[in-house]
Amino acid sequence: MSTSQPRLLIVGGVAGGASAAARARRLSEDAEIIVFERGPYVSFANCGLPYHVGGEIAQREELLLQTPKSLKARFNLDVRVRSEVVGIDREHREVLVRDLDAGREYRERYDALLLSPGAEPLRPPIPGIDRPGHFTVRQVPDVDAIRSWIEEKQARRAVVAGGGYIGLEMAEQLHRRGLEVSVVEAMPQVLGMLDPEMAAWVQMELQARGVRLFLSDPVAAFAEPQTGENAAASVVVLRSGRRLPADIVILALGVRPETRLAREAGLKLGGCGGIQVDETLRTSDPHIWAVGDAIEVRHLVTGRPVLLPLAGPANRQGRIAAANMLGGDERYPGSLGTGIVRVFGLAAAGTGANEKMLQAAGMAYEAVHLHPPSHAGYYPGATPLSLKVLFDPQSGRLLGVQAVGKEGVDKRIDVFATALKAGLTVDELAELELAYAPPFGSAKDPVNLAGMAAQNVRRGLVRLAQWSDVAKLDPERQVLLDVRTEEEHRAGAIPGAIHIPLHELRRRVEELPRDKEIIVHCQSGQRSYYACRFLAQRGYRVRNLTGSYRTWKAGQLAAQTG
Amino acid sequence: MSTSQPRLLIVGGVAGGASAAARARRLSEDAEIIVFERGPYVSFANCGLPYHVGGEIAQREELLLQTPKSLKARFNLDVRVRSEVVGIDREHREVLVRDLDAGREYRERYDALLLSPGAEPLRPPIPGIDRPGHFTVRQVPDVDAIRSWIEEKQARRAVVAGGGYIGLEMAEQLHRRGLEVSVVEAMPQVLGMLDPEMAAWVQMELQARGVRLFLSDPVAAFAEPQTGENAAASVVVLRSGRRLPADIVILALGVRPETRLAREAGLKLGGCGGIQVDETLRTSDPHIWAVGDAIEVRHLVTGRPVLLPLAGPANRQGRIAAANMLGGDERYPGSLGTGIVRVFGLAAAGTGANEKMLQAAGMAYEAVHLHPPSHAGYYPGATPLSLKVLFDPQSGRLLGVQAVGKEGVDKRIDVFATALKAGLTVDELAELELAYAPPFGSAKDPVNLAGMAAQNVRRGLVRLAQWSDVAKLDPERQVLLDVRTEEEHRAGAIPGAIHIPLHELRRRVEELPRDKEIIVHCQSGQRSYYACRFLAQRGYRVRNLTGSYRTWKAGQLAAQTG
Repeated sequence: MSTSQPRLLIVGGVAGGASAAARARRLSEDAEIIVFERGPYVSFANCGLPYHVGGEIAQREELLLQTPKSLKARFNLDVRVRSEVVGIDREHREVLVRDLDAGREYRERYDALLLSPGAEPLRPPIPGIDRPGHFTVRQVPDVDAIRSWIEEKQARRAVVAGGGYIGLEMAEQLHRRGLEVSVVEAMPQVLGMLDPEMAAWVQMELQARGVRLFLSDPVAAFAEPQTGENAAASVVVLRSGRRLPADIVILALGVRPETRLAREAGLKLGGCGGIQVDETLRTSDPHIWAVGDAIEVRHLVTGRPVLLPLAGPANRQGRIAAANMLGGDERYPGSLGTGIVRVFGLAAAGTGANEKMLQAAGMAYEAVHLHPPSHAGYYPGATPLSLKVLFDPQSGRLLGVQAVGKEGVDKRIDVFATALKAGLTVDELAELELAYAPPFGSAKDPVNLAGMAAQNVRRGLVRLAQWSDVAKLDPERQVLLDVRTEEEHRAGAIPGAIHIPLHELRRRVEELPRDKEIIVHCQSGQRSYYACRFLAQRGYRVRNLTGSYRTWKAGQLAAQTG
Repeated sequence: MSTSQPRLLIVGGVAGGASAAARARRLSEDAEIIVFERGPYVSFANCGLPYHVGGEIAQREELLLQTPKSLKARFNLDVRVRSEVVGIDREHREVLVRDLDAGREYRERYDALLLSPGAEPLRPPIPGIDRPGHFTVRQVPDVDAIRSWIEEKQARRAVVAGGGYIGLEMAEQLHRRGLEVSVVEAMPQVLGMLDPEMAAWVQMELQARGVRLFLSDPVAAFAEPQTGENAAASVVVLRSGRRLPADIVILALGVRPETRLAREAGLKLGGCGGIQVDETLRTSDPHIWAVGDAIEVRHLVTGRPVLLPLAGPANRQGRIAAANMLGGDERYPGSLGTGIVRVFGLAAAGTGANEKMLQAAGMAYEAVHLHPPSHAGYYPGATPLSLKVLFDPQSGRLLGVQAVGKEGVDKRIDVFATALKAGLTVDELAELELAYAPPFGSAKDPVNLAGMAAQNVRRGLVRLAQWSDVAKLDPERQVLLDVRTEEEHRAGAIPGAIHIPLHELRRRVEELPRDKEIIVHCQSGQRSYYACRFLAQRGYRVRNLTGSYRTWKAGQLAAQTG
């Protein structure tokens, strides 16, 4: 900055904006820093909002991390809530601010301006979408209103429109409050960050807990209840014709970046509709920076611009933008899109690219599926983790990981996210030295096992079949072999599979046809790998069904709903 | 191998040996593979042994992962238990095997020999160490004997000699069985992988659970009980003169590599007393490989040879040696020594080098201490993690991490271990994109915060003071400033500190002396960093007490016992 007392204005006082303001002060006592927040609160825990609906976060005050007063005392910040920035005069470097309580407008000059307006919930033009009893979840007052409505109307039945992060968190919390919950999703799966056979585990969990799930069935209309349809809010009418009476409706249909201010000021937007910034988070105007859910970032795996409305990146971007607004040169190289959500007893997480994204980007990949125990199998309480690891079969570069399970999902996804950021290959995953004691892991951690499974493919020790290949098998040329135990086979099998338990395979190998490709499976893919190695060395043409029976079973569910 | 049917002999059938045998078979159906195990079991869960003593692993069978029969059926392995290899004839490439049951000896020829004999518990020449009722914990029969002794003698009081991993796991499990437990340790701290102020948390936990702890007080003798001293085993006499009557004594005084066979065969040993191997895990004899607790490995941070008796590395080494015995060229670059142990409600973990190791290696380092919440503070159940991160202040290279806490320790240590392996700098830690939802983490994860704290040092934004500096302060030149709240200060303070809460600092700054260096502290080091930034920009000479009151408090305990 050329001035000795630079004036920093910040639009938006939650994740990115609040981080930027605090860091700017730590870097410069001289700067004048003003934060404008349209809502009544700053620096609140937006990711915690659903948990207050269900009472898991019992005290509303817990959500309010800072106040204008505390930020003034601690950081000498001038924080103005209920203050909406309605225009930017780039030529004179001024913003036009509307004081929502006083009803007046005024101008403030800036040396550097930061836009951190966030993203707004989508409200597509579905008939009746604006009826009373419909709520989005973005601000603390939204949660107040939801809680009040539930109490006043003694709401019994909830419909959540949208099966993304917020939709599923709200479904769980409404269920926790005792409501009957239906989740309605236009796509054939929940949680778009996951590929369908991984999302299937979450769908099973929702249904096991009594949440009704309607996939591939978008909302056609929010109708006024007819006589006999007892619904305090609307009757949610699906494309299939199904009618779901709802005492409350949560609209969790996704978000879009808030770009009105940027657009009207003539700042460049990107192809995904977010504000375009360079690596220093500067917009097309050299005096204006932007961070958070409103911007497009580069995806670190595909290299493509993406919208990733996530709190972690927003906070880090805020820190970086603050330094750069004060003359620094810090960089934000891009995002992996690491995300996690708890859905009742399961955690579901992803980092990097999923299969859909790699296909869209035209990138070559191979997928391994695993179901290792969350910690040493001989120590009580181990549960299977479902892992999907995507990698470049040529270079071995890790491309993306998805994980679902009851325990240890967050740990493994964080290790994978670190490996992705560091550019590790799958071979290096096999070498990671992770902490092992029976309550926490295994001598070969699931991450190591994933690396080894991928390494075996890369080294030509095994070829893989995917769950989706099974439906396409040609019985003239191919045969399925199940090497599980008698008990496992009886409990559920893939139709048409020959069954020879692994421990009998060496003496019964002659029962297998010499002239067909053998697709081997067990429960998770490990024993079938052993069988593949044996058979391959005996001259059989074999492929290992990666993820084996478990992944195939989840894939069946995904295919049904798809 | 030159022969078409190579003969692989493996000495030791647990972690490394069992992994090697199974992988060798997957790589070669032609190889003849014989595993010799001195004990009655192969491939058992040695890390699970303590948990069976306390009944957490209720069924003894859970510990027995494979049998010779199952390994024969699954992998066509010739596994011979109760078979001790007593000599190696390197010239003729033969081993001499003693069949412990039949009492006969025979020879077996090898093309490639793998030594995986493990490490044996130390039994230093302390008077009375071989008295009855004294047990080491290495094999399944050891645990059988411990359980029988406790039942037969109706043991009430246990003394565990040694405060390492196994000692503390045994202490917890004996306590779980209802015994009164004393832990006796010659060193001034438990868990040598931790630096003393980190081990202090574990010591507090042991004492809080009612385990008696005697530090800096080695066993002088195991004496026969005198009249009136009711002790089914021994009276453990400490150097201090204290006498601890014990119905059972666990000897957990550390382990040493089993090298007798290697030494007698003339194989090179290293300076730490382990078998010396190259990166391909080959010994000084080109036909003999060695893995696991018996070998020395290169420490990946210090570059020095070390003994690291850990299951994970042993398993990975077994895989690598198997490939190399069959003509492969896989490498084991070294170990980080990543380890974790659960001690009642705490987990304590480390990876890379600790301060003691860095000092011994003459490496420059800086240490940051943090106490962030295990997950978002506004979501219920968050507990503080104590983190110590060591890094090279010049290059920013991460050198080592220690973590202690109730929740999320295993996750963070695994992320740090991955970062260490990948050679990330502390700056890159700040950028990691880890999974955040309120039940699992924070928008700024503890790993990010550690990276930021280190980065602030590297960038010259703050200078640090360490807990151990406080006792050496010169009141003529230095002053302590506590910026915590009134309540926190009243609950416990560092003697002599000036107290000005952070939110009052801006208006009360004139109370501080201009001519002295100000060491600022809060509870964990974050608010004091804010204060440091403010004061530094106002022209004060300041340092931030890293880890602040919490680390200082733990350090006091460490200093008392030291």
